[in-house]
Amino acid sequence: MSQNNTSHPAGDDGKLIDGLVDELVGCLNPDDRLQHINQAFLPKRDRVIEGIELLRQVVFPGFFDEQRVTPDNARDHIRDLLTSIHTVFYDQILQGLCYERNVTRDQAEHEGDDGCTCKARELTGKFLKTIPELRRRLTLDVKAAFDGDPAAVSTDEAIFSYPGIDAIFIQRTAHELYRLRVPLIPRIMTEVAHSETGIDIHPGAIIGNSFFIDHGTGVVVGETTTIGNNVKIYQGVTLGALSTKGGQDWRGMKRHPTIQDNVTIYPNATILGGETVIGEGCVVNGGAFLTHSVEPGHTVRIDHPQLELRAQRKNRKTKNPTNNN
Amino acid sequence: MSQNNTSHPAGDDGKLIDGLVDELVGCLNPDDRLQHINQAFLPKRDRVIEGIELLRQVVFPGFFDEQRVTPDNARDHIRDLLTSIHTVFYDQILQGLCYERNVTRDQAEHEGDDGCTCKARELTGKFLKTIPELRRRLTLDVKAAFDGDPAAVSTDEAIFSYPGIDAIFIQRTAHELYRLRVPLIPRIMTEVAHSETGIDIHPGAIIGNSFFIDHGTGVVVGETTTIGNNVKIYQGVTLGALSTKGGQDWRGMKRHPTIQDNVTIYPNATILGGETVIGEGCVVNGGAFLTHSVEPGHTVRIDHPQLELRAQRKNRKTKNPTNNN
Amino acid sequence: MSQNNTSHPAGDDGKLIDGLVDELVGCLNPDDRLQHINQAFLPKRDRVIEGIELLRQVVFPGFFDEQRVTPDNARDHIRDLLTSIHTVFYDQILQGLCYERNVTRDQAEHEGDDGCTCKARELTGKFLKTIPELRRRLTLDVKAAFDGDPAAVSTDEAIFSYPGIDAIFIQRTAHELYRLRVPLIPRIMTEVAHSETGIDIHPGAIIGNSFFIDHGTGVVVGETTTIGNNVKIYQGVTLGALSTKGGQDWRGMKRHPTIQDNVTIYPNATILGGETVIGEGCVVNGGAFLTHSVEPGHTVRIDHPQLELRAQRKNRKTKNPTNNN
Repeated sequence: MSQNNTSHPAGDDGKLIDGLVDELVGCLNPDDRLQHINQAFLPKRDRVIEGIELLRQVVFPGFFDEQRVTPDNARDHIRDLLTSIHTVFYDQILQGLCYERNVTRDQAEHEGDDGCTCKARELTGKFLKTIPELRRRLTLDVKAAFDGDPAAVSTDEAIFSYPGIDAIFIQRTAHELYRLRVPLIPRIMTEVAHSETGIDIHPGAIIGNSFFIDHGTGVVVGETTTIGNNVKIYQGVTLGALSTKGGQDWRGMKRHPTIQDNVTIYPNATILGGETVIGEGCVVNGGAFLTHSVEPGHTVRIDHPQLELRAQRKNRKTKNPTNNN
Repeated sequence: MSQNNTSHPAGDDGKLIDGLVDELVGCLNPDDRLQHINQAFLPKRDRVIEGIELLRQVVFPGFFDEQRVTPDNARDHIRDLLTSIHTVFYDQILQGLCYERNVTRDQAEHEGDDGCTCKARELTGKFLKTIPELRRRLTLDVKAAFDGDPAAVSTDEAIFSYPGIDAIFIQRTAHELYRLRVPLIPRIMTEVAHSETGIDIHPGAIIGNSFFIDHGTGVVVGETTTIGNNVKIYQGVTLGALSTKGGQDWRGMKRHPTIQDNVTIYPNATILGGETVIGEGCVVNGGAFLTHSVEPGHTVRIDHPQLELRAQRKNRKTKNPTNNN
Repeated sequence: MSQNNTSHPAGDDGKLIDGLVDELVGCLNPDDRLQHINQAFLPKRDRVIEGIELLRQVVFPGFFDEQRVTPDNARDHIRDLLTSIHTVFYDQILQGLCYERNVTRDQAEHEGDDGCTCKARELTGKFLKTIPELRRRLTLDVKAAFDGDPAAVSTDEAIFSYPGIDAIFIQRTAHELYRLRVPLIPRIMTEVAHSETGIDIHPGAIIGNSFFIDHGTGVVVGETTTIGNNVKIYQGVTLGALSTKGGQDWRGMKRHPTIQDNVTIYPNATILGGETVIGEGCVVNGGAFLTHSVEPGHTVRIDHPQLELRAQRKNRKTKNPTNNN
């Protein structure tokens, strides 16, 4: 970004820009929801991404590190990573807290023990302490990915290249920050995962052990979803909210389904509603649309979709009728 | 990219590469559609991405800037950004125009007032003048995103992390360049959005105020689609063209649907055809497949998809029947 | 990544980090599947991405290069690119082979003619020799994209901005490495494409000439899929495996469908099973769910999905009933 080095154009272009500056500055009033002029604190997406990358290295040591990790340097390496993680997340959590409380820089620096800096240190500490347990749970997720996919050659391949592993790694991490009520950061994290993988899991979702998402593009898992152990879902599955009434009235209520242990949900199935429970061991087939509960141990499938088979006219002029979007 | 610093391998590898160079250079003839050897002008995707990032900072000041924006520096900051935007877009529009007219560098430098440089300046000016109106319309989009999503905590969260906001920001910008008939750049812009968000809106689509796309992965909106005010669509919705005849014959015709005001379209619904009109206030439920018009004020749903519920054998050997792709 | 420059915090934060270091180092045993401590060789995703970018420049010269390519410098330019491609892929193939055989650095350096370095040179040579044929096939893919899409203005636009072109370019390249039985690298390559485009084609899939994927988000093509010539598929199409039994038992078997020449498959159709053959010239309409073969020349469509049309109550309180995820 070189905007500070460019010389301002003279003549008509300069006048055009001057006029636009006046117009744009003129609309920067406090009611303008698109601006953060004079905002002392604000999380930064780039720093959050850096934090995710550091966490990935400490959770999967040796896989994504630039340097080779050996038994001799492992301890120092992990200490360095944890120190950096502490620095990045302390800073972003502080930004988030001060942003939420709308404090000035002066207030932040001179406040007492119950202020943002103190709270940020406390939350950062609590967050870091969840890392070992996070690792244990990701071991189970990686095992589930390998066991469940005949195309997988090794657990390494899953860690290296499975978007489902990346998405659940980021969501489980963001979920800890969500539980600590850190503002903005958890959602920024899961949207980084969404952008990279096409898998959109809200940081609020509660997800059991050994969760596997295959392929994953288009998966949506809503904020108040609960998922048991050994659940497997495919690309395009939505665990969403029922259509009832509008928007913000519904905030904080249980709006998304409960999926019990050992359930498999095939591609593009849609399951909606906070009272919908898919019982233990159920299989939901591709394309199903469910807004009610299913008792444990059942298979749900679309009852033979009526497919019409029609021979094509032999003498049609165009070879490939098309449906172009 | 360090290709100029690598030393050419000797021996067999060198011979292999020499042979491949001959073969590849040999096929670089004018009929070869994969090459742009000696192309004097050609837009660059990286520069277009830089332009999008600068626009994002001027439209949402303070959100994505590296430096803190204060009332004292806001005017200079916005002027710097606009100057950089002018530089980047003038250059890329010029590349696009000269590319389209296939002019040489000599021609471009010595041409008269009706040449590419003159036209590029005119179009860049017209484009910049649309920025204030673009901001006004994005304010409405951000408000629609917040109002329509109970998981949204603030409009800031929507700006920071909602892919739907990013996609509509880029499409509305690209649409202005599309209207000015700038070649290549608009489509490159919306494909940058597509890659980042999974939302594919053609720059040609005409979209009303307060448009909200939730989650968004897999959304496709075709070139001649018209969308009214207060429309809300979910992940996987296609507004596409009917299958009738092939390819390029259809260029320029109205091939995609019209969606009137206050319509909501739920996940994975597919609406096709240039004569298809979804009337004011309609609700189209998830998974619907529509190729005809719907009168205003109606709800369209799949009439109770026949779901077969089957208890699973208790003594099956494998716990999780799988459908692995 | 600045973890080596950060100073370790003193006091409570330092103690917290020390405790976590002990806990995390303590679980780095050989059984821990999430670590690669002391792994001498391991492919690097960043280097694989660099390799893809170099290949893109040699396959589409002039489109993505930082410098202008002219007849005068074309030969040197292509030679430089090929030399860099050789360097990057030799290195990554060597990493992959040594990783697979689990050799130490000493073993790798002192081994004989049948060792990893020798094999890596052989495979790199074989891979590079496929580039001219790869170019020829991509010419046909680009032509198919242009011919099949009325929104396409030129083949250049397809090369610049169509995710389908990028995905098939990467898959065809990865497929050659898959055929040479290079470990890990092919799958890392197609997952790079998946992340960028939302199109997930396994490197094992065998794909004929003139293949076109329109829009593409959510497309999944499984490992043992076979696709003929002139096939066109849209966003959300899955060519996947049938649900029968679990996971790794199915590795290596034909699990995914066969699509014959001149078939068109519309958005969100799902076709499953290794014995499923879609015959020459078939058209499969949007949303179809197929687990059995179709004779050549037929159209498959969902037989008029029963759509229920219901007028909305005029006096409902909320204007837009919502289905929020």
